[in-house]
Parts: sequence; C-alpha cells; structure tokens
Amino acid sequence: MITFQPLGTKLMYKTLLPLLERWFDEAELQGFSLPYSYHSDSQSDAETFTKKAKSVFEVFMSRMGSCYPFHQAAYAGQMLKPPHPAAWLAYAIATSVNTNNHALDGGPETSEMEKEVIRSLSRMVGYEPGTTLGHLTSGGTVANLEALWVARCLHPNKPVLFSAQAHYTHSRMCSVLGISSRAIPFAFGSEEEVDRFRASIAGAGTLVVTLGTTGTGQTEPLDVILPLCMEAGVRVHVDAAYGGFFTLLKNSGFLRSAPFEALGGADSIVIDPHKHGLQPYGCGCVLFKDATVGRFYKHDSPYTYFSSDELHLGEITLECSRAGAAAAALWFTIQLLGLEPDSAFAAMLRQCLEAARRFASVIGDDPRFELLMQPETDIVCYFPKAGTADDISRLSREIFRDTMQQGDKSLYLSLYKVDGKEFSRLFPHVESGNPTEPVTLLRSVFMKPDHLVFIHEMHNRLRASLQRITAQ
Amino acid sequence: MITFQPLGTKLMYKTLLPLLERWFDEAELQGFSLPYSYHSDSQSDAETFTKKAKSVFEVFMSRMGSCYPFHQAAYAGQMLKPPHPAAWLAYAIATSVNTNNHALDGGPETSEMEKEVIRSLSRMVGYEPGTTLGHLTSGGTVANLEALWVARCLHPNKPVLFSAQAHYTHSRMCSVLGISSRAIPFAFGSEEEVDRFRASIAGAGTLVVTLGTTGTGQTEPLDVILPLCMEAGVRVHVDAAYGGFFTLLKNSGFLRSAPFEALGGADSIVIDPHKHGLQPYGCGCVLFKDATVGRFYKHDSPYTYFSSDELHLGEITLECSRAGAAAAALWFTIQLLGLEPDSAFAAMLRQCLEAARRFASVIGDDPRFELLMQPETDIVCYFPKAGTADDISRLSREIFRDTMQQGDKSLYLSLYKVDGKEFSRLFPHVESGNPTEPVTLLRSVFMKPDHLVFIHEMHNRLRASLQRITAQ
Repeated sequence: MITFQPLGTKLMYKTLLPLLERWFDEAELQGFSLPYSYHSDSQSDAETFTKKAKSVFEVFMSRMGSCYPFHQAAYAGQMLKPPHPAAWLAYAIATSVNTNNHALDGGPETSEMEKEVIRSLSRMVGYEPGTTLGHLTSGGTVANLEALWVARCLHPNKPVLFSAQAHYTHSRMCSVLGISSRAIPFAFGSEEEVDRFRASIAGAGTLVVTLGTTGTGQTEPLDVILPLCMEAGVRVHVDAAYGGFFTLLKNSGFLRSAPFEALGGADSIVIDPHKHGLQPYGCGCVLFKDATVGRFYKHDSPYTYFSSDELHLGEITLECSRAGAAAAALWFTIQLLGLEPDSAFAAMLRQCLEAARRFASVIGDDPRFELLMQPETDIVCYFPKAGTADDISRLSREIFRDTMQQGDKSLYLSLYKVDGKEFSRLFPHVESGNPTEPVTLLRSVFMKPDHLVFIHEMHNRLRASLQRITAQ
Repeated sequence: MITFQPLGTKLMYKTLLPLLERWFDEAELQGFSLPYSYHSDSQSDAETFTKKAKSVFEVFMSRMGSCYPFHQAAYAGQMLKPPHPAAWLAYAIATSVNTNNHALDGGPETSEMEKEVIRSLSRMVGYEPGTTLGHLTSGGTVANLEALWVARCLHPNKPVLFSAQAHYTHSRMCSVLGISSRAIPFAFGSEEEVDRFRASIAGAGTLVVTLGTTGTGQTEPLDVILPLCMEAGVRVHVDAAYGGFFTLLKNSGFLRSAPFEALGGADSIVIDPHKHGLQPYGCGCVLFKDATVGRFYKHDSPYTYFSSDELHLGEITLECSRAGAAAAALWFTIQLLGLEPDSAFAAMLRQCLEAARRFASVIGDDPRFELLMQPETDIVCYFPKAGTADDISRLSREIFRDTMQQGDKSLYLSLYKVDGKEFSRLFPHVESGNPTEPVTLLRSVFMKPDHLVFIHEMHNRLRASLQRITAQ
C-alpha cells in the first residue's frame, strides 16, 4: 500500500499561523470587541471560559475528524477539495473583522478587493474589464439566478433554453423566476442537426451553455453555438461554475480550446471560485458583458452610505449582506498564485486534467472496465464491464459501497445515472433489460492535484474491489 | 479622552490559536492537500513561496487595517460587528476542511450540526422542533426569497403585503418571483384603524411582519396582527433577520414581550445569525412552521449520495453548494454560550439593548438633541434640534461627516431618511420647508456590548461636533 502523505503541510500552516497571530496582536490595538467578556473580566471567569472552550472544542474536533477524507486523493467522489491555505488564511483574518461587501461602507478595502478580482476574472474570460459588470455571490445558484433574472428583464416573454446536461438549478431557477424553460438537444454533427438546433432556438430569449457539466465535466460547444445564437438574436449565458477556471489552460493542449476561446462572446458567465478557484464556500461570481444591465439592479435604501459617489456593490447585487471575507480570500489567492496561463494556479489545474487523462487511459486499457466517454475536463465516468445494463448498475453500486469500507485502503467514488436509451446507443453490445431505466455508473472527480500520483493505487483498489465482489 | 481598550482580547485569541495549531497537526495525519506544493517540494521552492506569502500578506494586512474601526464602540454606524472569537475559530477550522452542506455526503458532521442548530433556533422562536422545516442560508435575502417563494407556491395568485418599514428586499424579491406585493399601514390604535387593516389584508396570501426593522429597530405588533391574519386566512411571515435573537430577552423587561411571544404562531421566520447571532457573514436562516412545505423543494439530481435515506439538506434548500463552516461556527457558538434566556448569549444581547436605552435617555435629556422615537431594540434615531426640517437635515449631515474626521476622537454614525410628512406629523413645531422632501436624521446601531461603557463619551463627541459646526 502506498502511504500517501502530502508534503509540506506543516511547513505551510506553520508559516501562516504566526501571521495570524501577528494579525491578532495588531488587531488588539484596533480594539476588537469580545462580547463574552463584558459581564466580568475576572481571572476566574476567563479560566471558566477557557475550560469550557477547550471541552467544546474536543467534541467539535472529534466530530470534524469523522468527515470523509475529502482532502485525500482517495476521495474522488463529489466536487470537494480544501481551499488553498493562502485563501484559508485571508478568509480567517477577514472573518475576524467581518466586513460586509453590501456597501463600500461595510468594508471599504474588501469591496475594493472585490472590484479588483472581478477585473481579473473578466480578463481571464476575455471580457473587457472596463465595460463588464460583475460581482461575487454566495454561490453558483444565486449567480445563475441573477443571470437568468437579467435574461428575464431583457426578454420577459421569451423562454430560456439549455441542454439536458445543464445543472438542475437552471430549470429550477427559471421556475422560481416564472420563466418558461426547456432542454433542447445540443447536437451539431450534421447539417441536419444544426438546422434542427436553429429551429429550436427560434424565438428564445437566452440559451444556457455549460462549460464543465457537473455530471461528466463536458464542455458544450460554445464556439459552434455562439454564432448560431447571434444569428438568431438569442442571448447566451455560460454556466462555467465548474469549468470556468480551465480557461487558463485553453492553449495548453489539455482541453478543447475553442469553447473557452469563445467565452468572451457570451452575454453573461457564472464561475464558482469555491469550486476550482481554491476558495472556501461560499464564493460564486456572475459577470455580464454589458455593464448597462446594472440598471435592473437599481434600488433605493433609506440609509445613506459614506461614499455614495463611487460604485456601491449593493446597487449591483440581488443579495444584500455579503461576506467581505470571500473577496479578501480570492484577492489574496490571485495575488499569490497568479491568474495567468503560466501561473501556479494554472499549473494546479493542469495537474487535475492530467490526473483525469491518466486515469481514463488506465481504465481504458483494463479489460474489466469501460469508459462512458473520454473525459473533457477532470471528471471520469466509467463502469465495470458486464453483459447486461442491470449487471453494470448492480456492480457499480457494489463497488461504490465496497471501496469505501476498506479502512486505510478505502476509495470514495460517486455514482452517476445515465439515461437507458442513451446508454444503449453508446454501448449497443450491452443487453438492456429495461431501456427506460437509467443505468448506474461510477464517477470520479479529479479536482485535487494529489490524484496525479495516486492513479495506479486508485486503479489497484478498484480492481481489488471488483475481484472481491465477483468472487462472492 | 477615554482610551477604550477591550479587555481580554489577547487572552482569548491566545487560547484559540494553539487549538487551531493542534487542529492542523492532527489534520496533517488526515492528509491535507496543498495544491501549490505539487510542482516541486524542494526547500528553495518553499522558501520562495514563504517569501512571497509574507510580502502579499504585508499588503493585505495594511489594506485590512485601513477599515473603519468596526470593532470599536466608536463605530455605531451600520449593523456591523465582529463574530464571537469562538465562532471565528470554528469557522476557520471548518473552512480548512471545506465541507459542503448541500448533501450529507458533502459534510456529514457539519450537516448534522446544521440540523442541531435548526432545532435550537426552532425552540428559541417557539416552534416545535420535530415538525419544523428549516435550514441555514448564505444570508437574509436568500432566506426571505425562500419564504416568499413558498408563499407563492401556496398562494400563486394572491399578493404579499408588508408595512412601509419592511426591508426593501421584500418588494424586490416579490418582483424577482413575479408576485404582486404592496405596503399597507400597520396602525392599530383605534377600532377604525384595525378595521382598515382588516380590509386591506382581505384576499392577501401572506403578510410580512418585521421584528427589528433595519431602519429604526422597531418590532411590529405581531401579537395584534397574527389573530387578525388567522381570522382572514392570511399566512404570516416574520422577517426577524435583525431582531430574531432578541426573543431570548422576551421576559427580561428590556423589550415589548408580546410580539416575541407570538413568534411561534407565524408560518415562517427568517433570522440572520450573521447579525446578532455572533457569526461571520454569510449565515442566514429560514424556518417553516409546517414541515410539509418541504414538498415544494423536491428535485432530482443525477448523482447518488451515500446516505439517501436520511434527510438530505439539498432537498430542502434552493441554494446548492453551501458552506458547512457556517453551520459549524453557529453550532460551536451555541454549545459554548448557550441559547437560553439566562445564557451568556442573552446577556450579550441585553447589554446591547441597555446601551441603546441609556443613549436614548442621555439624548432625550440634552436640550440640543431630540429622539425620533424611543428605541424598541438597539437602534436609536435622533437629530440636532433646529427650527426647520432643512436645518435638521443639514446639521445631521454635517455631524455625520465631522464626527468621523476627529482622529482618535472620531465617531462613526449613519444617516437615516424619514418621510417629510411623517416627520411633520411627529414634530409639528418644526417648520417643514418642502414636506415631500425626506428629512435626514442621525442613526446609531448599538449592536456591540462595548457601547454600554461608551455612552457618555459618545455623547461628548456628538456635543463637541455640534459645537464645532454651529460655531463656524
């Protein structure tokens, strides 16, 4: 067994903790308020508090310690990874001040940092920072809600379209907003399919294109879709919540460049820094190519803010109070790691893609497993070979359960359901019992660079599991 | 000048930092991943990183240090206060793991903590925890959006009503949801007014009542409104985003008890732990009295989760990814400080109310100032006396600017606009130039217990400012 110990952990946090300590030393001079201490400031009260804090902390720590090992390479289940320690540090410091990026007054510097990171992200996607409107949100749902709300403001009576691969939040937020919406096929293999697409977008207001679907990590062909939509007068919103940061790798040969090169032509874009942006939850982001959509956000508040002549973030968000800490952490991360194609940030993403590729290649070479498709980003869907779709589903579920019950040699995966008919189309040699039933496959998300050196061990654990199951 | 140094700061953080350090020592055994270090793990790379981290940190710290002094008693402007250090610690630890409370799988323990704090908050407001549905949100806007969305699900074609004092988010979210909405007078002084109220709620779906308006901190008479709404078949949603935690003081004599005693009769309630709940942003909460509204949230996702037979928080939220850290921090705080009428938590709130009362009494006794009204919670609105409304507005604005430019003796307030006609009604002796123009007053939010010992110094600084301005 490979004992997998990421290197440098202690070094990193030991570097950061004294900085944190120094912050508190300096913060004391600014007069931190400590609500608990105002009853009494006697030494005995402080001792009682310290004792209780330590005892609650014991329980807390033991509970937190019972999490699935999200940090380890052995966890390749859902989209979960710890933030970069630098993001963590900045977040921790900023929460101690607790600025509110609703208004400049609630956190002048964290609001300024938010504007700076919005400019960086705008440049990254190919927008002109000077004419872009954007802000951070508490997450991807709110970011997509705002983009769809603006879609409704611009085209109140026209439907929103997306592919069947789009995240369920789109149909849900359309229903919250009372917008009619539907899924249409995104197929462009033949002239006939393109014509069918043209016909289906006629009269639509906005089309949602996903770069990095949450199911299989696919990048929908924005480059093909965009000119067709422009021709038809249909707006394009890109949900790049998961895949947005891969834009940094567009010319690296690690992914299909064209959809990312087309990104700057989209009308709005959602990216979640709390996914691949190395940030803690919740940090989403919405960007609008045309800053004049800011007019829809306008509202009046009875409180006056100090600095009303500058851009006031509360005027261009649907949310009110928002954590300044999210902006601080993202600002710090971008300053430290860079946000260019040759940055440490980009290198981290490249390692994720490389891990997925290598794993797909190992699985593709193993006669006992089969890939659903070649991965387009860092998510791989695959299954144990079997004669019938039912057997594939059963084996997948068994491997899923068995792999995470192996102590030190556990593996944490997720399951993915594919439409039965679609599966039959892709794998006609597999006997489908009931084609209306979805087929359950295995899914692995390679969003941690640690996976890169873990591929073969992961494959070993998978094989061992299959062996255990079929030997029964 | 009083040098205002909160006591015990260093003691508190010095207690907490070693706990944090210990967490990282133990976390290393769990295999934290550090994306930056995977290129190379050489000592020189580590040194380069450390050097850069320190240099970016210098800039960061100097920028954060230039914030308004939100922590000090001298800041009594907007609703801003630092979280309790215990909340800070738990938040910092939990972000290092970065669990996602979308699903039990994303953070089994932080999801469980979320369920536990929801039970505590339900009990606090007088709901039966076993039959209540609730969850944390990223903030008050999303919490209110969900409550209004459920209002629409139950009564798709009926309007939502609120008083003119309701937060602007209600009319805004109603417009996002496509619900018709309007403000109605909340006046119950005479039988005639009650009849007028009865007439105006006829046919409505849901009425929003605010406990702790963000403008003046008023608690609307929920106890009077609730029976009238029940009689008319109108649902009641309580926006207690700001004032919810004051429920702990309902029998303390510090506030009007009846509206808080009626809270358990409301159909839904929003409370923001990131306001008076000692939490960092973003932490809101929505509670529904009747758990069966959960049916509106149902959706299907193509990924399978490990523990689908238990309550899965993603099934009862509109948001998808949510910070498990918010639940962890609130859980830790409640465990440590308690959430009962005799808890340290309640004592902290009592000190805020007491500070506001004392300040109101000092201002009421000063012939140069006048109160807009007696404070109902911890927000005080007041103004420098003058013969005309225009002079009052001008002097308020001048004091607002002047007080924050006095270096060590600065004071940070906010401005509040009152409808001109309403002001004339309350202060008929003041000459109103143009009654359609709002009158600008001063507003102070006493949400930090530190204010309690700062009242007289605050009054001194206000008087000095008025003197400077009128001497010119």
